[in-house]
This record gives sequence, structure tokens and C-alpha cells, in this order.
Amino acid sequence: MKYSCEVEIKVRYSETDQMGVVYHGNYIIWFNIARDELIHQFVVSLTKGEGLGYLFPVVEVHCYYKYPARYGDSVIIKATTELTSIPKIQVNYEVLHKKTKRLLAIGKTVNVITTKDGRLLLKVPDILSGKKNEG
Amino acid sequence: MKYSCEVEIKVRYSETDQMGVVYHGNYIIWFNIARDELIHQFVVSLTKGEGLGYLFPVVEVHCYYKYPARYGDSVIIKATTELTSIPKIQVNYEVLHKKTKRLLAIGKTVNVITTKDGRLLLKVPDILSGKKNEG
Amino acid sequence: MKYSCEVEIKVRYSETDQMGVVYHGNYIIWFNIARDELIHQFVVSLTKGEGLGYLFPVVEVHCYYKYPARYGDSVIIKATTELTSIPKIQVNYEVLHKKTKRLLAIGKTVNVITTKDGRLLLKVPDILSGKKNEG
Amino acid sequence: MKYSCEVEIKVRYSETDQMGVVYHGNYIIWFNIARDELIHQFVVSLTKGEGLGYLFPVVEVHCYYKYPARYGDSVIIKATTELTSIPKIQVNYEVLHKKTKRLLAIGKTVNVITTKDGRLLLKVPDILSGKKNEG
Repeated sequence: MKYSCEVEIKVRYSETDQMGVVYHGNYIIWFNIARDELIHQFVVSLTKGEGLGYLFPVVEVHCYYKYPARYGDSVIIKATTELTSIPKIQVNYEVLHKKTKRLLAIGKTVNVITTKDGRLLLKVPDILSGKKNEG
Repeated sequence: MKYSCEVEIKVRYSETDQMGVVYHGNYIIWFNIARDELIHQFVVSLTKGEGLGYLFPVVEVHCYYKYPARYGDSVIIKATTELTSIPKIQVNYEVLHKKTKRLLAIGKTVNVITTKDGRLLLKVPDILSGKKNEG
Repeated sequence: MKYSCEVEIKVRYSETDQMGVVYHGNYIIWFNIARDELIHQFVVSLTKGEGLGYLFPVVEVHCYYKYPARYGDSVIIKATTELTSIPKIQVNYEVLHKKTKRLLAIGKTVNVITTKDGRLLLKVPDILSGKKNEG
Repeated sequence: MKYSCEVEIKVRYSETDQMGVVYHGNYIIWFNIARDELIHQFVVSLTKGEGLGYLFPVVEVHCYYKYPARYGDSVIIKATTELTSIPKIQVNYEVLHKKTKRLLAIGKTVNVITTKDGRLLLKVPDILSGKKNEG
């Protein structure tokens, strides 16, 4: 089953670099914002997960830059995932210029779930997989 | 008694903004680097302090910008403090251009010491004040 | 005459540090977001100003931290300024926890206006002071 | 022909997140630091390139995280590239824990060369390819 969400981000002055565009590393932060929103919707908030003693470390990040974002722009981050029973959360991203709809970047991340002491989980614990969408 | 230290920092590309200079918020991070080095020298490493259950939150930050730093520059951060028995760590900073010695910024921070649950300490605990400089 | 504005910011995971709270340097970035919004409302957008060949470097930053913000929180940044004819833009800030209204921090910044080559302006150029609010 | 270089980075407090480890986005910044050093050695400094009117935008970023870096650690970033005549600079990275030599992450980036107005170059301009290593 596919889940997706969109978040809107207004470029911060602090996110630019001397090339006059958004510094490329910031897209990784934007992916993070959209991913948290996405995971929150159908599983459990990361905050709650961390409170329960689970961590969600990122194990892979990929980004392909097509066209720069600039200060003054608003961008839309679309995040999409397919939930499986395997505790590996793969999320795909599209970054779009809000006004022109131009595709600025695409990306992918992979997260795993571990206990606080770093032990990798091989299946999503019941308490996290949340009956949240069943209600 | 006065303590001081110097750290050298090579400007990172990621630290620039679209004005073509180092983004002003990054000086606060540079102060942090010099302060950690300074505190480490005569008290205890922050890492160890945090392991012992103490935190060192910043309660004040001040910075006066005189002249911009740029990508390609190396800067020197001079940090100075006077240790007192009061658990308020006040540190003063000077940021200098390494090659020209030009003064780029001056600043000040104030840190306090708290327990992990946020309770403010009114004196520096013995275990932290460290007999480190006595040996 | 007094001008003010409020912006809401949802704490980003990337803004936390290992103390489990928002890293103190990020408040300077938050001030920047509120200041841009404020200046945009009654003067001119920074983007446009920079296009016209003017820069607005920060020359002072001050922040007093009262209570930490955490991941999962939304905060309100209130920015207030009094416009004068002198080209020194002083802005005062309050950071409030959105839900509890608790005051998390207060701050102040001072910006000046310069030409692209760094020459300080002694009065606000007409083209910037904008008849924007007169309409 | 293969070129490589190593840079050492001491983890900054500001680079940690509330998981108690280095925030994953910061590895992209570390790659950037090592890449600039590498390119500087055999081609031309980015500063000089930008002065000549060329930009070096990143078009791809990939990172695989193996093991976390923590505050207090020093890490080594090894960057390796094979220079070709095609103006696409592909760099591979290894991030190692300085003391234990444990592999923390591997990565890859691809940069292109463009003119200031964003036009992609199809071969490295002579002025950049530099006879720097011939002398």
C-alpha cells in the first residue's frame, strides 16, 4: 500500500550559499521534514517512537539535483512510501518549485528501526506499527 | 584567574550565504567550538560532564560583527574566561582573520550548569571542577 | 512608528542537538526568518533590495535563552521594530512556545544597509524606503 | 589517473542531533570539505574558479551510513576521484573513525561545471584544468 504527503517550505536566507542558490546539503534536511510528516501520518510520531525507546536512523540518502531553488522561493516536498512488514522505511521524494511546478530535485532515503542501544529490529514492533489507520 | 585558548577554523563552503560571506549565525557555532576547547582544558570535557549527568546550556549569546569572513579564509577564534566558584561560565571571544590579523567579530556567551532534568546548580560540583590543573 | 509581525516555526529534527533540545545557534536563524518577514511587510523584500544592489548585513546579534524548545514543538517568533530615518534596522524578538505561550527566548539584532561593495549607507535610499505602506 | 586526499574533522557539538549522534545531513557537508581540498590539489581552487566565472554545482549526492559518529570523535574523510576530460567530477568518499579506523560511511557525489548564468560546459576549460601538476 502506498502512502504519500506534501509539505511546503519557504526557503530560508540561511539555506543559501555563495553560489546564490540553496546549498545542496539542505535538501537532505527538507527530505527529513517531509519524511517525519509522512511517518507521523500512518505509523507513529518519531517523538513518541523515541519515547518508547526506538530510534529511526537513516542508512541511505540519495539526491539528484535538477534545478536550483533560491531565496524567496517556496518549494513543495512530496514524500511517498510503501509500507511493508520489513522494518526498513524507504521513502522517495520530489522537490517542486511551488509557483512554476518545475522539478528541482528527486531523492530517496532508507531508514531502519533500532533499540536505543543500537540493536537493529527485524520486524516493526506492534506498538509502533500503530492501529492508527484502522480506527 | 584567566584562562584562554585559540582554535583555527577554515571556512566551509556550506557556511557562506548568498551575500558571498559567512552567514552570521555560524559565528555562534564557532564560539561553541572555541568554548568547548577552553572548558575542556581546565575543567572537564563536556562529553564527560554529560556522561556524569550534567548539562551546560547556553543562556546568553552576543555577537558584534565588524568585517566579513569569506570562503577560502582561515579564522582564529580566541576564547577567554575567568573561572569563579559561581556556576555561570562567561566566555569572551575575538574572531580574527588568520592572515591579516584583522578583527572580524567579538562576542560573549554565558553558560550555566544543570542536572539532566534541568535543575540549575548554584555551585560547580566537585566532580566537574576537576583537580585537572593541579596535578 | 512601531511595526511587528509573527511567524510560526515547527521545530525540525535537524535543529536538535544531543542535549535533546533545539541547538542554541538555531534561534539566530529563526530571528532571521521573522526579520525578513517584518522588513518585507513595510519596506521592501530583501530579494528586491539585493537585486537593486543593496545588502543588509547583520552587525549585532543578542539572545537570552529562558526555556528550551524541543522537536515536536511549534514556536512563535514575534519581531518588532521602530522605523527611523537612520539606516540601522534594530529588531526585537520574543520566542514563544505555541501551545503553552511560555516565553522561550528574547533577542535583538541590528542590521545596516550597504552597497554591494560594502560601503555603509548613512540614510535609507528612497528606492528602498518604499511608499509601500502608503498605497 | 587517480587522485585522492584525506581531511580530518573534529565533530562539532552543533553537528549532533537528539539521537546523540552526528545528524546524517552533516556528512554531505563533510564530503564537500574533502572534495574542495581534493579539487584544489590538482585542478584549481573553487574560489579561483568562481572568480573566473565558473560554478561547480553538485548534481548527485549519495551516502550509506554504517556506524554513527559522535561528539568528541575525530573522523577522517578520504576522497578519491579519477580525472577525465569530461567535465563531470565524480568523487568517492570513505568516512573513518580516526582512532578505531572503523568505517562510518561511504558516499559519492557528482559535480558539473557551468558558467555563472548556468550553462553546462561539455569540456573542462583550459584555464581550469590547470597545468598545476605539471610544473
